[in-house]
Amino acid sequence: MLFVIGLGLADANDISVKGLEIIRKCDRVYLEAYTSILTVGQKELEQFYDRSVILADRELVESGAEEILGNAEKEDVAFLVVGDPFGATTHTDLVLRAREKGINVQIVHNASILNAVGCCGLQLYSFGEVVSIPYWTDTWQPDSFYKKIEANRSRNLHTLCLLDIKVKEPTMESIMTKSIKYMPPKFMTTAEAADQLLKIIEKKSEKMVYSADSLVVGLARIGSNDQQIVASTLQEMKETNLGGPLHCLVIPARSLHPLESEYLLQYATDKERFLEIIKREETL
Amino acid sequence: MLFVIGLGLADANDISVKGLEIIRKCDRVYLEAYTSILTVGQKELEQFYDRSVILADRELVESGAEEILGNAEKEDVAFLVVGDPFGATTHTDLVLRAREKGINVQIVHNASILNAVGCCGLQLYSFGEVVSIPYWTDTWQPDSFYKKIEANRSRNLHTLCLLDIKVKEPTMESIMTKSIKYMPPKFMTTAEAADQLLKIIEKKSEKMVYSADSLVVGLARIGSNDQQIVASTLQEMKETNLGGPLHCLVIPARSLHPLESEYLLQYATDKERFLEIIKREETL
Repeated sequence: MLFVIGLGLADANDISVKGLEIIRKCDRVYLEAYTSILTVGQKELEQFYDRSVILADRELVESGAEEILGNAEKEDVAFLVVGDPFGATTHTDLVLRAREKGINVQIVHNASILNAVGCCGLQLYSFGEVVSIPYWTDTWQPDSFYKKIEANRSRNLHTLCLLDIKVKEPTMESIMTKSIKYMPPKFMTTAEAADQLLKIIEKKSEKMVYSADSLVVGLARIGSNDQQIVASTLQEMKETNLGGPLHCLVIPARSLHPLESEYLLQYATDKERFLEIIKREETL
Repeated sequence: MLFVIGLGLADANDISVKGLEIIRKCDRVYLEAYTSILTVGQKELEQFYDRSVILADRELVESGAEEILGNAEKEDVAFLVVGDPFGATTHTDLVLRAREKGINVQIVHNASILNAVGCCGLQLYSFGEVVSIPYWTDTWQPDSFYKKIEANRSRNLHTLCLLDIKVKEPTMESIMTKSIKYMPPKFMTTAEAADQLLKIIEKKSEKMVYSADSLVVGLARIGSNDQQIVASTLQEMKETNLGGPLHCLVIPARSLHPLESEYLLQYATDKERFLEIIKREETL
């Protein structure tokens, strides 16, 4: 049997009791290690689970499904995913491959940033489509996600922006050679995301529904003891350091519910200006 | 300190290890019992936690915040919520009241239907705004949620429809008297929701982007061992019984990703027709 188990967002003990019970009885346990990370690593997890864990990088998950699913008709295999199991398409694919082989599958759900983002006080029912902000390169600077932010704003919906993660990416030079070398992992910060958004806004000439002086909410390490939430202008977010990964960004709707603004106010870097911005954006 | 702890969606052991550890050391534990339910009741939870739990109905949470927060500056109070803590505005309000009183608050996240719905194979990143479908009465039949479904469809996004729950609602007769009597709890089924949707569609005269022959996905008791997922036409969903609560409904986008249709196909009541519908809806 294949168990796909969500680990939640931050700490080793964010796993559900159900999930932990399953891990302890499984024959093999894989940890998916490239679409997201916890605040703890493999060693801490192994200690907490009291068993060994096999790291599964992109190559193994996308090309090595045979290995992961090997003998899972008879043995119990756990596949651990940060957040909820259905956060990434590759996991959906693994489940499909398992079912094709007649292997039973059980999913153990957990928190993902898609619902935990509610901790900033913005109502989950007022979020529109989620967007992903990719790392730009010198030659590849896509901005299609900005259209989705605008579309959400035009319907007075918030936008959760997931920020890019680069784990185990081969260096350009090593791709040409036989021995692949990997770049150090990098995780986009709210400051980097704000910078890219500002560049997109600068390029647009039409009247903007979102500007450098608009409100943005930065979130870091949600669910951990040192999580941080900051509400500021986009311009200010570019200069704000929220510490270690993972970060995400929220572009609020133009008009906030009173309970939303009351809640969000506690995270404002400048409370007076926060209230001014909210009042101004409502009239946009 | 106030701990607001998500319980996940189905079973007693869907709570996180972190959440369970906190519950066991708290002085008082409240269970919010009116915005959602698990597949187990208060007794099973008390047994699993190995401690007593106080049921908190709407009256207590909305008017009795003083009682819940009483002495929480010194004592530890846990407030348990089915799903994730930020699923309902009343919980946001409780946290705000606590902070006003200088009481520290810690949130323990968990799965909610907003991310667990990904288990039907529709990508979470392709969902638009969530809608709530309320129980109609003879004199109150709102259909504003339908506009949001249309808006999502026009952007090729899926819509998660949360279905109404009536728990501890006073009977009309008893409101007139001094002793309030309550109606038995009721939970909207996917069949009832489909019926209301069909009635809305029948009333509209313009060319519809969504019809009785369109695709719908019904989900019941997600996360439990006997969860059910069915993909059928809206007309057929009206006649389909998915068993006990909770149910929810998904209106898929017009055009599905190949991985989405491959995954969803396993839940189709009629696989051939499912593929026909998908093909037809893509051209809408």
